[in-house]
Amino acid sequence: MLSRIQFVLSHPSHPGNVGAAARAMKTMGLSRLTLINPKNYPSADATARASGAHDVLSQARVVDSLDEALTGVHLILGTSARLRRIALPQLSAREAADQAAASDDQTQIAVLFGTEKSGLSNAEIDRCHALLNIPSNPDYSSLNLGAAVQVVSYELRVAALQRDGMEPERMAEHQPAPAEQLAGLLQHLDDALADSGFYDGKQTETLKARVRRMAQRLAPAEAEIHLLRGMLAHSQRKRD
Amino acid sequence: MLSRIQFVLSHPSHPGNVGAAARAMKTMGLSRLTLINPKNYPSADATARASGAHDVLSQARVVDSLDEALTGVHLILGTSARLRRIALPQLSAREAADQAAASDDQTQIAVLFGTEKSGLSNAEIDRCHALLNIPSNPDYSSLNLGAAVQVVSYELRVAALQRDGMEPERMAEHQPAPAEQLAGLLQHLDDALADSGFYDGKQTETLKARVRRMAQRLAPAEAEIHLLRGMLAHSQRKRD
Repeated sequence: MLSRIQFVLSHPSHPGNVGAAARAMKTMGLSRLTLINPKNYPSADATARASGAHDVLSQARVVDSLDEALTGVHLILGTSARLRRIALPQLSAREAADQAAASDDQTQIAVLFGTEKSGLSNAEIDRCHALLNIPSNPDYSSLNLGAAVQVVSYELRVAALQRDGMEPERMAEHQPAPAEQLAGLLQHLDDALADSGFYDGKQTETLKARVRRMAQRLAPAEAEIHLLRGMLAHSQRKRD
Repeated sequence: MLSRIQFVLSHPSHPGNVGAAARAMKTMGLSRLTLINPKNYPSADATARASGAHDVLSQARVVDSLDEALTGVHLILGTSARLRRIALPQLSAREAADQAAASDDQTQIAVLFGTEKSGLSNAEIDRCHALLNIPSNPDYSSLNLGAAVQVVSYELRVAALQRDGMEPERMAEHQPAPAEQLAGLLQHLDDALADSGFYDGKQTETLKARVRRMAQRLAPAEAEIHLLRGMLAHSQRKRD
């Protein structure tokens, strides 16, 4: 299960944190690290802090965009220091790890970490199926990036160990489609709604965001996306 | 319970790790730090890495000996990267945290961390009531000192929250709409699809069933049902 999980660090500012993240991952048996536009990277600082995890660091994938980072991923978990008032499932680190452990063997999982300063952007949260929260001191919830990676990696390892120690429990039969297919559905829906004159201009972005969140929560399978896009295509043809 | 716990770092070599430990502790609501003969301390490095936890750092007790560190302590947990062949109870971090949470309100607890290089000495282990082990990659179990403090602090916080019966509070609870509203949505969707000529007659029931399953999985809230029905109504009006 751990080999199906990649950690994605979005725009990390301090290469030392990237190194610490690599080390934290390796101590828990995780090895797939993706960096979106890291600042001052590669760097001696990253290498030093990675310590014996230079292999994880040197194999890290460096990409330009969130889309590139998430291609082929089925389940996207966004880490968030605080609970947010949005309609996404919000899981504790333990619950998220349990959910990852319960996923089937085909499910590719990404855990997304925002920048040190401001965490995940709204655009990043929009791509997530659920938010993962590390319970912390409400008066000081500022975990260092490497420390957050350590806690999440740890919970994933413990969940993986428990999974292996147990009867292969009921695995989820539902296999969400990869991220790019969900993005395709949303684009199609957007176009159809715009064609139909649904957006009145005033609340367009709010409406789009709410629809997007519903779609993330639904996490449709490939066949379901085909079905939904079939409906959309049909309604568009009918209108012409 | 967290106020009964102190973390004792024995002979830490890198002041940066002391700062990281202070920060890790504070994020989890722990504040009592004791340092036995720290090297190069105090230091700007420690202060920098402590970030917003300078209070924990500045209140840290610096002592000369293990005896001094452990005066008044009832339960001593020694952290160990590997399981050891000794006649001491060996607990996972989670078990140790549960044990700490189960202790009575008078019990003073110390969690003892050895040096970065070699961990706890035999003399230190001799003082422990149990060893605490963080499950890790057998091929690379080298957690950074600050990272180990983070994981143990985290487990203690989660155990304390569970003890208080306080699941980490959750906002943005998603409240699915009552069944009749979901049924209304499905009926509306059915009508719209039938109007648009989507159903070709052959697979109608199968398609309807698949849509129904998706809707049930989505479990939309009332506001979401209004939004979806708004879209449907709009697409129906457009067609007329």
